[in-house]
Amino acid sequence: MICMDQRTPSPPLYETLAAGVTTLIDNGLLRPGMRARSVRAFAAQHGVSLTTAVQAYRLLEDRGVLEARPKSGFYVTQRSHRQRELPTASQPPQRASTVAVSNPVFSVLSYAGDPSYAPLGCAIPSAGLLAAERLDRHLARCARVHGRHYNIYADPHGDAELRGQISARALRLGHAVPPEGVLITNGCTEALNIALSVTTRPGDTVAIESPTYFGLLQVLEARGLRALELPTDPTSGVDVKALDKALGKRRVAACLLASSFNNPLGSRIDDARKVAIIRVLTRYRVPLIEDDIYGDISFGDDRPRPFAAISPTADIILCSSFSKTIAPGYRIGWLAANRRHDEILAAKFALSLSGAALPQKAMADFLKSGGYDAHLRRIRKVFADNIDRMRRVVDRSFPRDTRMTDPKGGFVLWLELPDGFDSDTLYQRAIRERICFVPGGLFTAGRGYRNCLRLSCSHDWDARVERSVARLGELAHELLA
Amino acid sequence: MICMDQRTPSPPLYETLAAGVTTLIDNGLLRPGMRARSVRAFAAQHGVSLTTAVQAYRLLEDRGVLEARPKSGFYVTQRSHRQRELPTASQPPQRASTVAVSNPVFSVLSYAGDPSYAPLGCAIPSAGLLAAERLDRHLARCARVHGRHYNIYADPHGDAELRGQISARALRLGHAVPPEGVLITNGCTEALNIALSVTTRPGDTVAIESPTYFGLLQVLEARGLRALELPTDPTSGVDVKALDKALGKRRVAACLLASSFNNPLGSRIDDARKVAIIRVLTRYRVPLIEDDIYGDISFGDDRPRPFAAISPTADIILCSSFSKTIAPGYRIGWLAANRRHDEILAAKFALSLSGAALPQKAMADFLKSGGYDAHLRRIRKVFADNIDRMRRVVDRSFPRDTRMTDPKGGFVLWLELPDGFDSDTLYQRAIRERICFVPGGLFTAGRGYRNCLRLSCSHDWDARVERSVARLGELAHELLA
Repeated sequence: MICMDQRTPSPPLYETLAAGVTTLIDNGLLRPGMRARSVRAFAAQHGVSLTTAVQAYRLLEDRGVLEARPKSGFYVTQRSHRQRELPTASQPPQRASTVAVSNPVFSVLSYAGDPSYAPLGCAIPSAGLLAAERLDRHLARCARVHGRHYNIYADPHGDAELRGQISARALRLGHAVPPEGVLITNGCTEALNIALSVTTRPGDTVAIESPTYFGLLQVLEARGLRALELPTDPTSGVDVKALDKALGKRRVAACLLASSFNNPLGSRIDDARKVAIIRVLTRYRVPLIEDDIYGDISFGDDRPRPFAAISPTADIILCSSFSKTIAPGYRIGWLAANRRHDEILAAKFALSLSGAALPQKAMADFLKSGGYDAHLRRIRKVFADNIDRMRRVVDRSFPRDTRMTDPKGGFVLWLELPDGFDSDTLYQRAIRERICFVPGGLFTAGRGYRNCLRLSCSHDWDARVERSVARLGELAHELLA
Repeated sequence: MICMDQRTPSPPLYETLAAGVTTLIDNGLLRPGMRARSVRAFAAQHGVSLTTAVQAYRLLEDRGVLEARPKSGFYVTQRSHRQRELPTASQPPQRASTVAVSNPVFSVLSYAGDPSYAPLGCAIPSAGLLAAERLDRHLARCARVHGRHYNIYADPHGDAELRGQISARALRLGHAVPPEGVLITNGCTEALNIALSVTTRPGDTVAIESPTYFGLLQVLEARGLRALELPTDPTSGVDVKALDKALGKRRVAACLLASSFNNPLGSRIDDARKVAIIRVLTRYRVPLIEDDIYGDISFGDDRPRPFAAISPTADIILCSSFSKTIAPGYRIGWLAANRRHDEILAAKFALSLSGAALPQKAMADFLKSGGYDAHLRRIRKVFADNIDRMRRVVDRSFPRDTRMTDPKGGFVLWLELPDGFDSDTLYQRAIRERICFVPGGLFTAGRGYRNCLRLSCSHDWDARVERSVARLGELAHELLA
């Protein structure tokens, strides 16, 4: 509806040609490392002059989409957008804040779940990508065959076979937790609630990354906890010195960090830094709650190890779930701990007694039957490609000084626009055009990140997604004009 | 293992014969109101003297199992145990207590869920009684047909169709709550957590019945709430004057009562008393959280109305679930409220984001397809019969001055033995003999009810259940000797 009557002038021909090449790359027909046609062949193919073809290739080179190799021609660059700077490392205020984020979050969520809006808001994969048909068949079978046996209040710890499967998978990462140390929860959110309930009391302070997932802020808000936000680098994660300094200044009841690819930065903490963080926490006797929900979506072959694998004797409660990789609709999460088992069980019992029995049994059967790892390999590749494509569209659509993350896992991008940019206004305009994303202000208990936004790449890449990202870029241009 | 070598002397013949008649009644072959054989026919049938037959019938008359009607013969009494007194109305201390009950509860629960123990501990119906095969088939179908559509983070409110079904069922009880006022939860326990989270802050006091369900005490404990236990009559429920007096004395953040057939007393609050309770709560501006989980298991035809139906404009949050009537394994509960909708949604989101989608859809389909009311009628009758049989066994097995409840709904019996009786010791001995029940001390945050115990009649009545109740009676005799 907006701007219906405003005609934009046609772009020059070489720009249109360049966009066509980018589309071939975005659609996967041209892949990173592949050789592009020669300039001459390109000109002949499109029936344009050699000058126009050269202009188009220069533009693509400028944009980092193609790279010239001496005496060899043009190639699709491995990552075609190196020129974009990363967002600055965060510098949140050094005080704990009470949390009150719920109201704006619900507005965003109502659009994020509405399929009539372009899905840049919701951070769960589309059902098509998840391809959980085999899991559903296991559930159907369990309901038919085991219904009567499982129509009980199950063990509050959760299904024993499922806990065994989770324990075995953890061991492959070097995280030795016996099935008895695993407790099944209603998604990762309940796991975080339980972990916080056994480590904190209302009014306590919890140290977290900044920016951080708004759902986590809501959990802190509901539990009456204060958030101490830590400086966090978009690539390497939380600042260890800042953590040390913060813990020296005030009592912190728990530290809550993403194990890997945190939401929204996608930062990855390397093993050495993980060791350093644990050392600091141990010195101050602060338990770590780690949220490993994105750990399995690593773009490389080396799935990062959680803190609990690196420091097996430290005071760590690991929380995770299957929601990001296979079954958001099943609501199966878990936590794994090497102490406080009685309190954890009591907390689970007091929150929801026990979990639904048949979905747990179905998940156990699904994991046992194999194929989950092949599935993970497949979706990792999809998400890596999606992130790549979205970065490219942001690159060519957003204002020149827009910074963006370059995540090595997960499926969200974090954009930082110049100071003074108001992503809430962008959000209002985008919603009117049926495009949903999450404005940056939701990712802090403080007042920062108003110039930032999170884009989700968790849905199948299609023309609508591409168009929507491009349109957001146009709107951002307009807002900055 | 216990008493293996101690032979008890054989009982007299007339006692054995009387026990045989009681068994016929307990097994339903002789029903209340039916005419028994004549003494002469009974003697001939068993090949005993007329004197022995008369002795057996006298004993049965003494025990209230048979009644003589002039010029007509002997009949099975309508309720054969009128002579047992009801437990005394509770008189808990008039101060709020902190709650710490979790540890003993888990010991009991571990046995209650173990099928090698006689099931007098666990207050959920056996899977055979629940007969949820049709519901399971709906789940199987949903998983096959709708899996992809439902593999999302569902609306945190829960499945719209299910909320519509629950709203329609509520309306039949005169409780007008639109689907938008219903929120689906992970069982009634999560509903209670949400209701408490929007009405209380840690450190607040919540007024509750005494004795009350230990799971509720655990929820209060986990939320850092104090329990103010109210005097409660085993038949008519909480004492209104005592409630009024208590609220006049101290700030109470919420009052939490069972709508009907509370666990463990099975008391039923009539409509007039419900009105009076709401009047008192409204005067002190104290919200009511009502737990209607046993409401559908009314032995009479008149299913009692919840508070919310009687006082539609009062500040009431109704909590319930399908766990006691059809599907404890599905973990589907709900709450219904006429205000605080935003806070309730935020609390749900912070606790567990949303519920598992397919089980909710299956439950909606099951309710729509009809037959749930026929199912309820069937299990009500089973539980009424079970309660009747168990009362009879208690009557003939337990020490003479044992009091017991006479519930008109639900499936638990509450026994009160003489002061000084220690149900914890009985529990220890019973567990050694593979019999589980719940000792009375778990039903209070204080120190009362050590002379009480709860027996569950939620499983199919069989010889093992009968033998176990009788054996508990013998053990109680021994402990009092």
